[in-house]
Amino acid sequence: MNKKDLKTTRFMGASTKQGYEIAEKSREIVRSLIADKTKDLSNEERLIVERIVHSTADPGYADITKMSKDFVKVSMNSIKNKKDVLTDINMVKTGINKYHGEVNCYIKDERTVTLAKKYNITRAAAAIRVAAENDFNGIAVVGNAPTALLEILNLFNKGQINISSVIGVPVGFVGASESKKALEKTEIPYLLTEGPKGGTPIAVAAVNSLINLKKE
Amino acid sequence: MNKKDLKTTRFMGASTKQGYEIAEKSREIVRSLIADKTKDLSNEERLIVERIVHSTADPGYADITKMSKDFVKVSMNSIKNKKDVLTDINMVKTGINKYHGEVNCYIKDERTVTLAKKYNITRAAAAIRVAAENDFNGIAVVGNAPTALLEILNLFNKGQINISSVIGVPVGFVGASESKKALEKTEIPYLLTEGPKGGTPIAVAAVNSLINLKKE
Repeated sequence: MNKKDLKTTRFMGASTKQGYEIAEKSREIVRSLIADKTKDLSNEERLIVERIVHSTADPGYADITKMSKDFVKVSMNSIKNKKDVLTDINMVKTGINKYHGEVNCYIKDERTVTLAKKYNITRAAAAIRVAAENDFNGIAVVGNAPTALLEILNLFNKGQINISSVIGVPVGFVGASESKKALEKTEIPYLLTEGPKGGTPIAVAAVNSLINLKKE
Repeated sequence: MNKKDLKTTRFMGASTKQGYEIAEKSREIVRSLIADKTKDLSNEERLIVERIVHSTADPGYADITKMSKDFVKVSMNSIKNKKDVLTDINMVKTGINKYHGEVNCYIKDERTVTLAKKYNITRAAAAIRVAAENDFNGIAVVGNAPTALLEILNLFNKGQINISSVIGVPVGFVGASESKKALEKTEIPYLLTEGPKGGTPIAVAAVNSLINLKKE
């Protein structure tokens, strides 16, 4: 494997020779499995969708992953400028590798717990308010809680949060689909998964793919 | 919502009133969606599968999630005795809530990095060797890397690792399915997902469900 190959396979998160070889083989399988579904995407968009399918082994994500036209450009600028990345839960934060900016999650912050009790909202939603109060400015990533995504839209509409783009892939049968439909209707550059499906691996794959694109 | 309801909905990971209500509604939807697929399971097995489907919004997991007959009993004993939980990657560790025993992951351990380079194996596999050398004894959880699962089986066959049970849900098109077939053939009590699908949310859902069952 030459240096260029190593570089292109690193997008799968591999860090050893055996890891690279597995990643390269997986990349080829994923690419051929979803080739017909990605043919109208830009190169960057295709790499993001491929990484999402790689991380879930579910080609169905190629059908339901949607990006606004400005998503890649705006998000890559945010990454290049080392703006913040905000995640709804710590699992997403833990999965984000090698970012030179800050990755924040306030779900376990004391202020979040207090706010959630005071206003009878979920901790995921309260954590977004805490981020906004903490002058967050960058890409918001929701891999779990629809209520976090709805709170982002609520604060955005009030002009109370600075957002480059939103990766909105909350999961579940209660509110997830609706929250993503609401995101699609805003002016915010977005990546989302239509319907109830989504989750932390999808969120992590999208962010790490953007970080990797920035390096190439 | 009365106290008993709060207790039963806590299995979804909710921690506020609004969170409980969402969790309860989701639980009902999931239960009805997969009722025909869970009717032959024990109560505990059914709760585990429901939580996996809840965490992925993918009813397909009810078809591919398999447990050996001794899995629940052995795993709950391990949890009750506060034995270790070992995870292949930190994302899985981060997602495990409220366990009174230790949750370990050695993927970023210096010894792991050295071992992986020395033997040209993946860091995920090397991390399992480090755990075994560190006298791991408990439930091993593989949410990502097939090579980690294969290394567990390798060390088990050599009598070099103490395992209560294995939650083996690595994901991907290269080796994941084969590694799970190999697990199924051992004497180790297991939970696995057949085929390429799996991942961190499935691993986390299974462990947190066991921790919650222990409390009931």
